[in-house]
Amino acid sequence: MTDLQNNNELPYLLKEGERIDDLERNGYKIIQHKDKFCFGMDAVLLTFFAKVEEEEEVLDLGTGTGIIPILLEAKTKGKHFTGLEIQPESVDMAIRSVRLNNLTDKIDIVHGDIKEAENIFKKASFDVVTSNPPYMNDNHGIKNPELPKAIARHEILCTLEDVVKEATLMLKPGGRFYMVHRPHRLIEIITCLKKYKMEPKRIQFVHPFIDKDANMVLVEAIRGGKSMVKIEKPIIVYETPGVYTQQIHDIYGF
Amino acid sequence: MTDLQNNNELPYLLKEGERIDDLERNGYKIIQHKDKFCFGMDAVLLTFFAKVEEEEEVLDLGTGTGIIPILLEAKTKGKHFTGLEIQPESVDMAIRSVRLNNLTDKIDIVHGDIKEAENIFKKASFDVVTSNPPYMNDNHGIKNPELPKAIARHEILCTLEDVVKEATLMLKPGGRFYMVHRPHRLIEIITCLKKYKMEPKRIQFVHPFIDKDANMVLVEAIRGGKSMVKIEKPIIVYETPGVYTQQIHDIYGF
Repeated sequence: MTDLQNNNELPYLLKEGERIDDLERNGYKIIQHKDKFCFGMDAVLLTFFAKVEEEEEVLDLGTGTGIIPILLEAKTKGKHFTGLEIQPESVDMAIRSVRLNNLTDKIDIVHGDIKEAENIFKKASFDVVTSNPPYMNDNHGIKNPELPKAIARHEILCTLEDVVKEATLMLKPGGRFYMVHRPHRLIEIITCLKKYKMEPKRIQFVHPFIDKDANMVLVEAIRGGKSMVKIEKPIIVYETPGVYTQQIHDIYGF
Repeated sequence: MTDLQNNNELPYLLKEGERIDDLERNGYKIIQHKDKFCFGMDAVLLTFFAKVEEEEEVLDLGTGTGIIPILLEAKTKGKHFTGLEIQPESVDMAIRSVRLNNLTDKIDIVHGDIKEAENIFKKASFDVVTSNPPYMNDNHGIKNPELPKAIARHEILCTLEDVVKEATLMLKPGGRFYMVHRPHRLIEIITCLKKYKMEPKRIQFVHPFIDKDANMVLVEAIRGGKSMVKIEKPIIVYETPGVYTQQIHDIYGF
């Protein structure tokens, strides 16, 4: 990522503490705030794992600064992408990033609560739902100044079940849900998906090193599918400390 | 494995078509029939994955020719091992293998149906239950002469649910269940374990090559545990076609 904060072509776009990062895809850029939640490898891996076909409509639940719709627009032939986000500052950055990339026809950023998705959008109207939701369900001792980051990371404003429930309601029958999460919650994830009649079809684990436990999991579930899942080849992030594997270079595309 | 069929020290042990294979652990050997179900890498990996502590009592559901109790006796400090098997010919071979290895004090082979385990053994009396059950639930077109092998491979005489249900009934509270199965049935496995209050705690996937989907899964579940699972480092079987990885050599111990 290149820090373009000091690039004086676009100073009007940025508010204090914000920067523009180059996504190295289609020349797209993203606005992020240095002290707030910035996207990580999980979002990038989710857009690599998710399949969006031509003409499909995509909804991203908890879109943050819009990284997932922007990367999916760059990588797929999807027709339209909508990002739903509850934090106003993230929504504001996401909207400016969409404008910066001239994507206002392709991407909508909507300010709202995941738990209200069923009231904001038409039910069963999306082919694909994606989400990189908060991972952590231990919400002790979070102080106020840390709240914006904590909301993105901890289940303060929505739980895993809220995300899965709303994803199901938003998807057309046979529609696909893609989520990245923490492997230690895999059993809850599967139990919750099954509760809402979403059948996991593809699972891919991400291991920091080949000889370490997984620290991320990517899941594809189909609304109303049959029980038969594929565990895909592992994604291994580092060859040696600090040195990405070829697999990660291929995913990032550089 | 060394074929000792022509070793004339022990000809009285063998029936027609049988052979003795060296397990390369403690000098232990196993009797198998060349045309019937012979143990595979799945059984060996299960005994590598399973943890048996000193003084623990172990039950193996569907023990076949006794490979799992024999290997576990070699590798662990467990107090006693019981193998339950429905096919009389396998029971007969397993009993002779136990005698051949002088393990009659440590291993019992019992002839009986997994579905009847709750009536054969005292409930909640084992610390550990293991199983390498039939994987396949497509039982079409199996012909009579193929039946002994098919019973070991297909859910003809018992289903995944039968195995999980009996394992739960046999385990002490907090006891551990170890199973090897096919990853495409992972969702059913997890759903079924949860139904019987067994919580998956460790899962390890086995991939034939690093860039291929998993073809085996190893699961540890605790009777009455909390929801928190570890996805362990992948097991990769082959470096290149026909050449085992160092990881597999380490597991096999040669």
